[in-house]
Amino acid sequence: MPTVIELITPIVTEGVRSLDDVKALESEALSVRHSLIDIGPSSIESEFDEALAVPGTLEKAIAAEKAGAQAIVIDCMGDPGLRACRETVGIPVVGAGQAALHFANMLGCRFSFITVLERIRPMMDHIIRGYGLSEHYASFRAIDIPVLSLSEDITELQRALAKASAQAIDQDGADAIILGCTGFFGCAEAIRESLAKDGYGKQVPVIDPIPVAIHLAETLAKLGLSHSKISFPSPDDKPIKGFTIPGFKAA
Amino acid sequence: MPTVIELITPIVTEGVRSLDDVKALESEALSVRHSLIDIGPSSIESEFDEALAVPGTLEKAIAAEKAGAQAIVIDCMGDPGLRACRETVGIPVVGAGQAALHFANMLGCRFSFITVLERIRPMMDHIIRGYGLSEHYASFRAIDIPVLSLSEDITELQRALAKASAQAIDQDGADAIILGCTGFFGCAEAIRESLAKDGYGKQVPVIDPIPVAIHLAETLAKLGLSHSKISFPSPDDKPIKGFTIPGFKAA
Amino acid sequence: MPTVIELITPIVTEGVRSLDDVKALESEALSVRHSLIDIGPSSIESEFDEALAVPGTLEKAIAAEKAGAQAIVIDCMGDPGLRACRETVGIPVVGAGQAALHFANMLGCRFSFITVLERIRPMMDHIIRGYGLSEHYASFRAIDIPVLSLSEDITELQRALAKASAQAIDQDGADAIILGCTGFFGCAEAIRESLAKDGYGKQVPVIDPIPVAIHLAETLAKLGLSHSKISFPSPDDKPIKGFTIPGFKAA
Amino acid sequence: MPTVIELITPIVTEGVRSLDDVKALESEALSVRHSLIDIGPSSIESEFDEALAVPGTLEKAIAAEKAGAQAIVIDCMGDPGLRACRETVGIPVVGAGQAALHFANMLGCRFSFITVLERIRPMMDHIIRGYGLSEHYASFRAIDIPVLSLSEDITELQRALAKASAQAIDQDGADAIILGCTGFFGCAEAIRESLAKDGYGKQVPVIDPIPVAIHLAETLAKLGLSHSKISFPSPDDKPIKGFTIPGFKAA
Amino acid sequence: MPTVIELITPIVTEGVRSLDDVKALESEALSVRHSLIDIGPSSIESEFDEALAVPGTLEKAIAAEKAGAQAIVIDCMGDPGLRACRETVGIPVVGAGQAALHFANMLGCRFSFITVLERIRPMMDHIIRGYGLSEHYASFRAIDIPVLSLSEDITELQRALAKASAQAIDQDGADAIILGCTGFFGCAEAIRESLAKDGYGKQVPVIDPIPVAIHLAETLAKLGLSHSKISFPSPDDKPIKGFTIPGFKAA
Amino acid sequence: MPTVIELITPIVTEGVRSLDDVKALESEALSVRHSLIDIGPSSIESEFDEALAVPGTLEKAIAAEKAGAQAIVIDCMGDPGLRACRETVGIPVVGAGQAALHFANMLGCRFSFITVLERIRPMMDHIIRGYGLSEHYASFRAIDIPVLSLSEDITELQRALAKASAQAIDQDGADAIILGCTGFFGCAEAIRESLAKDGYGKQVPVIDPIPVAIHLAETLAKLGLSHSKISFPSPDDKPIKGFTIPGFKAA
Repeated sequence: MPTVIELITPIVTEGVRSLDDVKALESEALSVRHSLIDIGPSSIESEFDEALAVPGTLEKAIAAEKAGAQAIVIDCMGDPGLRACRETVGIPVVGAGQAALHFANMLGCRFSFITVLERIRPMMDHIIRGYGLSEHYASFRAIDIPVLSLSEDITELQRALAKASAQAIDQDGADAIILGCTGFFGCAEAIRESLAKDGYGKQVPVIDPIPVAIHLAETLAKLGLSHSKISFPSPDDKPIKGFTIPGFKAA
Repeated sequence: MPTVIELITPIVTEGVRSLDDVKALESEALSVRHSLIDIGPSSIESEFDEALAVPGTLEKAIAAEKAGAQAIVIDCMGDPGLRACRETVGIPVVGAGQAALHFANMLGCRFSFITVLERIRPMMDHIIRGYGLSEHYASFRAIDIPVLSLSEDITELQRALAKASAQAIDQDGADAIILGCTGFFGCAEAIRESLAKDGYGKQVPVIDPIPVAIHLAETLAKLGLSHSKISFPSPDDKPIKGFTIPGFKAA
Repeated sequence: MPTVIELITPIVTEGVRSLDDVKALESEALSVRHSLIDIGPSSIESEFDEALAVPGTLEKAIAAEKAGAQAIVIDCMGDPGLRACRETVGIPVVGAGQAALHFANMLGCRFSFITVLERIRPMMDHIIRGYGLSEHYASFRAIDIPVLSLSEDITELQRALAKASAQAIDQDGADAIILGCTGFFGCAEAIRESLAKDGYGKQVPVIDPIPVAIHLAETLAKLGLSHSKISFPSPDDKPIKGFTIPGFKAA
Repeated sequence: MPTVIELITPIVTEGVRSLDDVKALESEALSVRHSLIDIGPSSIESEFDEALAVPGTLEKAIAAEKAGAQAIVIDCMGDPGLRACRETVGIPVVGAGQAALHFANMLGCRFSFITVLERIRPMMDHIIRGYGLSEHYASFRAIDIPVLSLSEDITELQRALAKASAQAIDQDGADAIILGCTGFFGCAEAIRESLAKDGYGKQVPVIDPIPVAIHLAETLAKLGLSHSKISFPSPDDKPIKGFTIPGFKAA
Repeated sequence: MPTVIELITPIVTEGVRSLDDVKALESEALSVRHSLIDIGPSSIESEFDEALAVPGTLEKAIAAEKAGAQAIVIDCMGDPGLRACRETVGIPVVGAGQAALHFANMLGCRFSFITVLERIRPMMDHIIRGYGLSEHYASFRAIDIPVLSLSEDITELQRALAKASAQAIDQDGADAIILGCTGFFGCAEAIRESLAKDGYGKQVPVIDPIPVAIHLAETLAKLGLSHSKISFPSPDDKPIKGFTIPGFKAA
Repeated sequence: MPTVIELITPIVTEGVRSLDDVKALESEALSVRHSLIDIGPSSIESEFDEALAVPGTLEKAIAAEKAGAQAIVIDCMGDPGLRACRETVGIPVVGAGQAALHFANMLGCRFSFITVLERIRPMMDHIIRGYGLSEHYASFRAIDIPVLSLSEDITELQRALAKASAQAIDQDGADAIILGCTGFFGCAEAIRESLAKDGYGKQVPVIDPIPVAIHLAETLAKLGLSHSKISFPSPDDKPIKGFTIPGFKAA
């Protein structure tokens, strides 16, 4: 029986996360399910978007656990709803941002976070400080392409990411690159090749968050590990108004 | 014309925040309006509760700005929606937690955060780390009374708070006390007196977050200061599903 | 009865702090008194100057409390004598530096400190580390004009400050500006306008320390809050030689 | 073809790492090889032991890469030789300590490190500071049993670990437990059960470093990720005296 | 020619610093001169005392340099006037506190600071944070004897210090002891013996600040090293009122 | 009787450390002995080199203590074997890197570390973080000359170091320079002169690690101070294979 991981993309826009992306990660030992949220934003590029994404993410997390998923991955670098979901379900919940940041910290000494828009910088600074990893945070760089335009020209996207990666190494002293948007899925190999061709050596870690997060979730599920319920205790069932969260009564 | 401050209590339960509390803060120069949120939790005692409180808080913040408020105070120590609201409105948005923590840091060297339930500890640790104030954080203490039971026995509440405050000073080396729940409104004076009577001196700061936050908001409004739009830029108007946020189109 | 705040300018040079500056802050609810010190330096631009400013500041603080002031503001960004004064008087003592730094930390994520001379940098680095706020300190910039020449050409001063502010945003990633010399009083509005005109948006906080510190002192006085006497206990009355400090005996 | 991981136990004593331990981790997709070092200490309980373990670990790492291993795990919580091995080989090298610490940081907020002897405390404090994770380090606890006596009474060992874990939660505020000696392999489940039985809930992460490190190594190998050669560049081939390191000339 | 060090005791009380203490440090290569200040406090036990000690310390430092001293040691753990003196003279100025803290950090991993009175704690916390050494600061402990009573019963003093040292090791995890008052001069050996006798081993560093600071000053003088004039530039000669500082004009 | 210090150069290459260097430090009160290691690398420019240097350094440290040395200095900025040697001998062991870093922290506010090769950067970042001194670490700069070529052109070496020092001051805000390779011995004076000539003032500390470390070791020996045996307890005598460490039995 394969380990079942639910990948929750916390936006309402269909087609941004390709099902092919998801399929490529599966094996006999690993089955990946995918869901969008029902209520929330079109894409996540602000704290405002993130805030609106969380209630829908909670619903999907509860549903996934009920449906037998063994672990959940939140498909956004800002880890929206990670802490709330961890309170609400028992199966491990992994944030793509959290996973990528910790892998970068294990593979190198100074990571650079490369993402879509400059406006995301304070969000990521805040998240990285929250995980206690600021000491190893070499830089933030933005390629200035909005999330919903990412798929328009994949070659141009990879070129922009490779250029920002090279600048992060040269100017910011980075030794590892985090692809700081889950919409960059599948670009890591092309960037690694580009860096190698440009003389940065064959072994600069370029971290694609979704595969990393999914295999991390798989490892946790396999080993019977989950987040601490001491820090993320289950919420009391008090009345809630305006949301239908399975298992919680309406006000 | 008085400065108009909107106090948003980010829960749906009426009667928890007494209108008398609000009135006591007003003067010729200061008018305080109050609103509950329309959708959200009964009380905030978890990350789950907080997550569900944010969309309703955003709605009320936008409405308050439209209605002419000159500053907003979020009436919860976890500062739910603070960052999202700051993106969404231009008038200053002050979090009760943020205000109390910074005042404590200015009046002493090591604050203790005293609140309702032990389960809130990881939330506060996370918030305090986010503000970069962990170095001065002497301790967290819980009195083990849920938010919605706070008003049942005010004498007992004050006794529990005074006891925890004394322990924070004696055992944790605290020199200032933050009343870590906005439901403790109005207890500061009694605790100060109790500490003085018990030999801790007359001048241990006991910080009641709501008055502090409201006067901070008033000062900001009066001086024409607000949060930085460099770090909190306005969100784009992309389609949103399942929420009716004034000024944003539905998906 | 208005709240009475004493603004102590810790230098001996008359005319640097204009009485008009002080008057502009007053209202029916707020009366601001002003004093220079009797012994000390002409201006504060070094640790040496600061050290010589403290005994005179202590004298004035004791006198102000005796004369009925309800709070004291020290009119210098290095907060000279703040800790010693807090030991010596019971009314709240606010440092202009401390107040501005904490307000910047509340309004943005990364403040820049812009002041008169490069030589002040190590003093401010030291002070900011002392408050535990280094994590949010984007940069220090100096405009290279000595304190006592500040009033010579106000237009040129504002131009220099606006230019340094823009550089702090562009090159240092600052999102809030601290006017790092209390001699810059009254320049904030002009800098804000200049930044807006130059495309930095209308909402970059530019913090003028004196109004911020005075309203903070007013809030503390109004709420009955003061610094912690646990951390700032009253000094013993031991003999002192060479200074006449009211309430302390001479050796 | 399964992914091949080499587990290097950096001591010379046979029988401490049971081959059964290793076998239990294997699957169709994963093959684990095991080696002891040829020169070095009997066990690792000091910086002295660690220093003598590194040359032998380097030899084994080079041999493992040559023999086709796709990743290496160093079987000691002090991560002896991790940085030197990363310079010397291209395949990913994972330290058991590093892996366990990062997993603990992802699953909870405050980990406790429980190990054999009090004397290891300064070594671990130093390592945890090196990874930048001190902020989340709740406590160090020792059960006072030397490494080479661990297998003598497994029930007693588990009882001692469960007791220390409970104390870490109660007294140190820990929310996750790191089994801080790779000789504790296989005890996690018993401790989790003991904690559940004693009222700490079913979901306190108890991290067994070897399985975590092996699956992390597997994930890295599978995704083509390895440590950064920017930070761990290959050593020059200069003459070496007294060691025969494959690929390096003797002096 | 011996290296000449000036030891400035920044108080006005004669007899506290015995000339025998000073003589014991001298050799053919080292001559130690001693001075009290002319204006200032009887002893230093508060920020207030410290503030009044600095102008007199500045005078003595300038005089010492003029009289040919090759380095200066400030004889107080709070390092009063260290930064101001470094601006004002070119010869190295060493603070007893600074020297002891850095030596402790080099000899162990977690130092405890043991001093006269609990009220000094916030001063030392502030100083240690200023030097960036908080990470290694295990604890502060006070023996509750005022400075001017230290010489009354040397056996009792040593017993109190030994007891506090043992508690620091047992309860705070300290591995090195700083005698946190320069009035403890000469007690280190007795405490070391007491710790050895009580089973703490023969090699717990007990740091007596004055000998450490004097030999550090000697080393600096011998090697032609001094504090950086980039960070401590000479003050401008502006008019000063109420102080006669050699080389600076009166207002 | 002079104090006897053993300087251990942890490489096997003769002639790199000139005996003249050593002699210049001696006086009637100080005798310096010198030893190379018997097994290890030709020079230290990597973690790999360092790892191979430690067993030989341990041997020499034990031999030096036996032969009556009163303190040991390890002649390499990476402090190889410092912690292991401290466990193994009782006399003080000083690392050249540790000593230079702490002296820099005492003489200025922001040191720059200037060394041979860029590849050493992650090693030094790691060491500086380990000592808790990162807060004052202004920059790392490399002059791009390998260790074994340092003596080829001393004028060119000094020019390169002076240029890097000036850049560290101008571009990185450094106020003190650490000569970050013990092979730079004797260059400090030339760099100080060059900086003075180029307008950086006469008093920028340029720290030559060997003299600093030797006089620090002398001070420790003279005062009867050594590293803490609480943190560096003696290793147990367990069998060791492949090394002949005096006092430890072979496996």
